[in-house]
Amino acid sequence: MKNKLTLLLLLCVSLYAYGQPADSLTIRKIYNEALGNGQSYEWLRYLTQQIGPRLSGSDGAQKAVDWTKQLMEKQGFDRVFLQEVMVPHWIRGAKEMAYIQNGKQKITVPIAALGGSVATPDKGIEAQVIEVKDFPELRALGVDKVKGRIVFFNRPMDPTKTITFEAYGGAVSQRANGATEAAKLGAVGAIVRSMGLAQDDNPHTGGMRYGTGVPLIPTAAISTNGANLLSKSLTENPSLTFYFKQDCESLPDAKSYNVVGEIKGSEKPDEIIVVGGHLDSWDLGQGAHDDGTGCVQSIEVLRILKALGIKPKRTIRAVMFMNEENGLRGGIKYADLAKQNNETHIAAIESDEGGFTPRGFGIVGTAQQKEKVIRWKPLLSPYGLHDIGPGGGGADIGPLAALGTVLFGFKPDSQRYFDFHHTAIDRFEGVNKRELELGGASMAALVYLLDKYGL
Amino acid sequence: MKNKLTLLLLLCVSLYAYGQPADSLTIRKIYNEALGNGQSYEWLRYLTQQIGPRLSGSDGAQKAVDWTKQLMEKQGFDRVFLQEVMVPHWIRGAKEMAYIQNGKQKITVPIAALGGSVATPDKGIEAQVIEVKDFPELRALGVDKVKGRIVFFNRPMDPTKTITFEAYGGAVSQRANGATEAAKLGAVGAIVRSMGLAQDDNPHTGGMRYGTGVPLIPTAAISTNGANLLSKSLTENPSLTFYFKQDCESLPDAKSYNVVGEIKGSEKPDEIIVVGGHLDSWDLGQGAHDDGTGCVQSIEVLRILKALGIKPKRTIRAVMFMNEENGLRGGIKYADLAKQNNETHIAAIESDEGGFTPRGFGIVGTAQQKEKVIRWKPLLSPYGLHDIGPGGGGADIGPLAALGTVLFGFKPDSQRYFDFHHTAIDRFEGVNKRELELGGASMAALVYLLDKYGL
Repeated sequence: MKNKLTLLLLLCVSLYAYGQPADSLTIRKIYNEALGNGQSYEWLRYLTQQIGPRLSGSDGAQKAVDWTKQLMEKQGFDRVFLQEVMVPHWIRGAKEMAYIQNGKQKITVPIAALGGSVATPDKGIEAQVIEVKDFPELRALGVDKVKGRIVFFNRPMDPTKTITFEAYGGAVSQRANGATEAAKLGAVGAIVRSMGLAQDDNPHTGGMRYGTGVPLIPTAAISTNGANLLSKSLTENPSLTFYFKQDCESLPDAKSYNVVGEIKGSEKPDEIIVVGGHLDSWDLGQGAHDDGTGCVQSIEVLRILKALGIKPKRTIRAVMFMNEENGLRGGIKYADLAKQNNETHIAAIESDEGGFTPRGFGIVGTAQQKEKVIRWKPLLSPYGLHDIGPGGGGADIGPLAALGTVLFGFKPDSQRYFDFHHTAIDRFEGVNKRELELGGASMAALVYLLDKYGL
Repeated sequence: MKNKLTLLLLLCVSLYAYGQPADSLTIRKIYNEALGNGQSYEWLRYLTQQIGPRLSGSDGAQKAVDWTKQLMEKQGFDRVFLQEVMVPHWIRGAKEMAYIQNGKQKITVPIAALGGSVATPDKGIEAQVIEVKDFPELRALGVDKVKGRIVFFNRPMDPTKTITFEAYGGAVSQRANGATEAAKLGAVGAIVRSMGLAQDDNPHTGGMRYGTGVPLIPTAAISTNGANLLSKSLTENPSLTFYFKQDCESLPDAKSYNVVGEIKGSEKPDEIIVVGGHLDSWDLGQGAHDDGTGCVQSIEVLRILKALGIKPKRTIRAVMFMNEENGLRGGIKYADLAKQNNETHIAAIESDEGGFTPRGFGIVGTAQQKEKVIRWKPLLSPYGLHDIGPGGGGADIGPLAALGTVLFGFKPDSQRYFDFHHTAIDRFEGVNKRELELGGASMAALVYLLDKYGL
């Protein structure tokens, strides 16, 4: 008898841990719908090839707002609405130019102004170069060796990190703060090795900010091949000069929007689950992996639920956040409005690490909440979602944490992401249809479980 | 006291299960070496771009034999040798031509003769078309409806399979046996929908065989776009005709070689662990993912061991098998020689599913052997190797199973593989350096554990 009770208990525990067989079937249907009738790839084609780059304040950004709103309305979601938000409006202007002047040899190298940078004077800047790997090395050089020069930040992303985002995290301070640190010591410009692991000719733009009380010096990314060449040339001739010219400008803030589509919850409409990506993108490519994929996957999640006749208990929202790249104003605005309107957001999922094959989800929440989600692993691991545990959520949904929302960062395979990130080659062709669709299905599966079981 | 004993026991069990901390460190070093100093990507560049396609019996195949032999000699492996083997020698001849003649409209479509097919007559073949999804449907039509026609096999790979090899498995019989089944009913040719999940214009070639006692009719693959168009056109006009012309030919068997490099074991040199890929490739592309990547990864495994000063107890061999694509003669020869020479092969790992991000290993062996390997999971899963369990080994190493060898199939992410497989776009550019290197590291880590702990 005792043994039978134990067995029964074990059965209950394991059913609780593994979810109902019905869940497993529903999740299979979600993947079948995504892979068999998926729409996200064609949506991405339009967003990237017909609309193209969508930097905050640009015509492309406005077109993307209009188009995603119409698209979600056509899907018949219960409500589609905009959230107005003022966003920074930086423009690149004319294409940048740069060369290494090594004695009589002039070698052109590919650069791209960093987002937020000031322009050079019209005639450009030419100066000697001092190469450093990090800020301590720069500070150790002191004003004497830096003043009047261009500082060249050349710390590569560490290729031995198996998750490329860790390599990015170890290098990106150069891009974000390099100009400020250089200006403190009297530099006239800052050139930063591109945040990429591939050795190629594509400069990677990206956000930077100026500290207060220091001169605003122009700053640009140089391609990894260009950085290698400059470093090698400096070894041979430390007194060579570098020339660059850029035309970028910060205009007054512009009016823009988050775009939100929702399916109303049937039982607990006041509890909201968000799935989102950011609609803005850097201007060099088409904003495919960053983050067109996250946007179309989020809309696809709602489409899949509707197509399968799944009526969520809670309200599910697809949110296209505006201005992740150079301000995060959309994410901040979304959380502000949620607070202002007394909305309860139980969970938010962001897809902003590319449209690659799914690997899992990072979770930001209490130990108990994480544990609950980790117990769903047996339902998700058959689809390659093994990495479910503590981890980052996502920039846009970050501000929701203060409201007690549990955050989920969708984690696709990271190997190729930084080949595309913020470059001219972040285009539709770089996205694989099936990988994109598997991502949407993975997010839909998690939304389904979150809606059914809460947190 | 009892509790302390229990604790000690638990500790022992968990150390046994999880391996030594030293293993974890060595495996980290293996990945660091692969990602930081990896050579396989540049080797692959040479193999694909300088040597190119390597169909059995071709000049390319011979060049690849010579080059990989030299490459392994330069690496200073203890022994590098060839194994002579006679291989089929099929040649494509002039580029194929095909069109749909729909009333007055003539629409060219891309086809590629299947490997092993006979040519059409010089003037080509033109006939009405009968479309079927599978052999039962074909047989149900009977001689009356098939005789004198071209049979069009149009069963797509199932996109809802999350592992694409399963979708391939469900469709490939059309390619392998379609011509024979069609000829039995008097068809004059067989056109087969390409084995790919993408909708594009790349026909996928691949092996086929003729059954005995039926006429040898010519057979070719048509691109997925071409197949869709042909199917649609047939719906509109069932009496349209299809024309195709191909020039291929089977020549007498040619002399070729497996290429083997080895590091001699320090303690048990007579116990051999093989890691391999196949050196031959279809003629349309450059044989990058299929299977240049498997070859360079295998050589890289031995290079990594040497670079880290790891002296294996057992003998480790990198084997470039010849003729996987249209005969498997190299794999059969390798096992024959192993038997003849009384060699003990404890394990063999094959990489022949592309150079994509690693996911795990399939194991063919006894339950006990599988269990032992599965206990190493905690050492391997930090590198994304979650799928370790029963599964296929690999075509080339298959014949070793009869000698009691445990087989391992390296499993990379499968989503993109069939975009490239047997097509003109299976080129160097489709391979990502880091994904390739992670694969080599994963194989090296498994070799390290197999060598240290046996099976």
